[in-house]
Amino acid sequence: MQTKTLLMIPGPIEFEPDVMQALSTPTTSHVAPEFIEIFGQALERMRELFMCPDGQPFVIAGSGTLAMDLAGANLIEPDDRALVVNTGYFGDRFGALLARYGAQVTHVRAPVGGCPSLEEVEKALQGGPFKLVTVTHVDTSTGVLTDVQGLAALARRYETLLVVDGVCSVAGEALRMAEWGIDVALTASQKAVGTPPGLALLVAGPRAIATFRARKRPVGNFYADWAHWLPIMEAYEARRPAYFGTPAVNLVAALNVSLEIILAEGLEARWARHARIGEAFQAAIQALGLGQVPLQAAWAAHTMSAPRYPAGVDGTEFLHRVRQTGVTLAGGLHPQIRAEYFRIGHMGSVGLSELLATVGAVEAGLAGCGHRFEIGAGVRAAMQAYLS
Amino acid sequence: MQTKTLLMIPGPIEFEPDVMQALSTPTTSHVAPEFIEIFGQALERMRELFMCPDGQPFVIAGSGTLAMDLAGANLIEPDDRALVVNTGYFGDRFGALLARYGAQVTHVRAPVGGCPSLEEVEKALQGGPFKLVTVTHVDTSTGVLTDVQGLAALARRYETLLVVDGVCSVAGEALRMAEWGIDVALTASQKAVGTPPGLALLVAGPRAIATFRARKRPVGNFYADWAHWLPIMEAYEARRPAYFGTPAVNLVAALNVSLEIILAEGLEARWARHARIGEAFQAAIQALGLGQVPLQAAWAAHTMSAPRYPAGVDGTEFLHRVRQTGVTLAGGLHPQIRAEYFRIGHMGSVGLSELLATVGAVEAGLAGCGHRFEIGAGVRAAMQAYLS
Repeated sequence: MQTKTLLMIPGPIEFEPDVMQALSTPTTSHVAPEFIEIFGQALERMRELFMCPDGQPFVIAGSGTLAMDLAGANLIEPDDRALVVNTGYFGDRFGALLARYGAQVTHVRAPVGGCPSLEEVEKALQGGPFKLVTVTHVDTSTGVLTDVQGLAALARRYETLLVVDGVCSVAGEALRMAEWGIDVALTASQKAVGTPPGLALLVAGPRAIATFRARKRPVGNFYADWAHWLPIMEAYEARRPAYFGTPAVNLVAALNVSLEIILAEGLEARWARHARIGEAFQAAIQALGLGQVPLQAAWAAHTMSAPRYPAGVDGTEFLHRVRQTGVTLAGGLHPQIRAEYFRIGHMGSVGLSELLATVGAVEAGLAGCGHRFEIGAGVRAAMQAYLS
Repeated sequence: MQTKTLLMIPGPIEFEPDVMQALSTPTTSHVAPEFIEIFGQALERMRELFMCPDGQPFVIAGSGTLAMDLAGANLIEPDDRALVVNTGYFGDRFGALLARYGAQVTHVRAPVGGCPSLEEVEKALQGGPFKLVTVTHVDTSTGVLTDVQGLAALARRYETLLVVDGVCSVAGEALRMAEWGIDVALTASQKAVGTPPGLALLVAGPRAIATFRARKRPVGNFYADWAHWLPIMEAYEARRPAYFGTPAVNLVAALNVSLEIILAEGLEARWARHARIGEAFQAAIQALGLGQVPLQAAWAAHTMSAPRYPAGVDGTEFLHRVRQTGVTLAGGLHPQIRAEYFRIGHMGSVGLSELLATVGAVEAGLAGCGHRFEIGAGVRAAMQAYLS
């Protein structure tokens, strides 16, 4: 009996053997010369991954929510106004987080599966000024992809900071911080970056750092305060020891290997591979007659898919059957539609094998649940899209 | 040439092979049944380790400083009064952290290497009331061990919460949360708990939880807010899936193995082993003619030692020579005496081999630096103390 399943959820994902080997390499001191070199390299590679040559990378032990806190807590002061471009659960979360630090938060919302248009966002910006705008690049609860480049252009025009929650996008979706004019982008290690969970990753551009330095009040969050971490990140990158909190030595070593793998593939090639796989998944889902949470094809992410269950299929039974076939998928997350859809993560080192194995398991699950469809239509559509 | 050195610093430490194997086991979904079982077990074992049957354990991705934040941010409201029993760098840090959340902080200090007496603390308490008292069980910057049991009795008498920073003590020094009347105890994974760095660990007793529930204002720190994590910890312990932030799956699996090893040894036996090893280290240091940062033998920790360099020995050269002999030790951390001393961590799975290897390396380092002493006096004293 197969005990190991293929992990195709929107994080954690399947990790490369070299990454796992780095993870389990005997732990050194956090100020050992070998580790200083590893951490320094990882920081340099973060800057390349985020395409932000003049940005300041932060690598800190914590989850993706800590990465959001590293943005919100350091940029917001009480009564600052913030605009949240909201495409799901994580837009709600960012709004709640910013409010915790005293922000007056305005949301630009869309129906579930929708994405506010640039016109709607611009209209909201006209009601500003806002200190910052946040957007979830890919909302893990809906699989909706936002037009970050368009929003960045708007943010520049309205002179507000743009903070991109790239938890489900960085290293999978095209993202060019400096070129597009993004001020902060953040992610978590266990998504498309391909490192086991436990690291919050963030790059702050010069306008964000300047905003931080111009603060009138201390940061409300002690652990997340950039004032504590800036000297540490600068020191490691300059290959000098420094201490604030003990870095997660093994995870940082694993991250450094992940980043090396990502940059060796090349960002353009990696984004193209994710686009190809994502489109093939979505073609397969369509061929099986399933709806999808994103209301338009252009809003569907390349790092994950969010198919709706067909009528008569019970989600719990379906996910159980898929798992018995050797693939782990995720249930719904968005509170309004939680039981109506499931989620497939296709990030990191995914290729044709993972595509076919996963679509095949979805077909087996649907068939096992009594859904009537043309068996093989999914894998055929996946192959056709993949080779087109 | 030897590339792997014995890591004898006050964290990270040498980790057990089974722990490293759990760390590198392929990552599962954070809501996979196997992982829910692992996390649930780890939480139950946390309660045993902290000896707090009615406590609420928290296991969250982050460093030990996050663990301090998990205490301070959730218990302090603006203008609360807090008393810090300060024995070094981490007392200063706890004070700064509590102030960040609005506390009016009073420190009871001692000279570097000293420890405030219970009388001095009681005198300060008489100037209260204080909402809480913090104490660093073992301050990693000085190696000073505090009388947590005595302080807990005082805290009960003066009806204030006692928060124990056990980062350098839990699983190495005797600590009985419920029996002694401690309200919060916290640590980090990479110290005596024996898991690679990246997890903040905390147990909150019933009075602390009640204080949190009676808050008038929201917690100032979003990521650390117990309101987010309480339902998650309760769910995993009840073997139900739940989501706030993605747990550090691999580190939690490693932690669960560490905790199993600790509880299999037995807490009494583990504390006794640390005491025996610590006393042997300190006997060796004394036999070599070196002073120690703790001003009294009774204030010296069992999890680490803080020897002073003899006159004429340069710290940088000494640590380099020790490292060449195959052992990594740590330099000083306390700002007032940073260059005057070094630090040896002797936590986790340490025994006679590590004791002798480390004392031998210290002797080799001292001899290489031109210090005159009776070669072998250290290892002989260590053996005698160990077998006494």
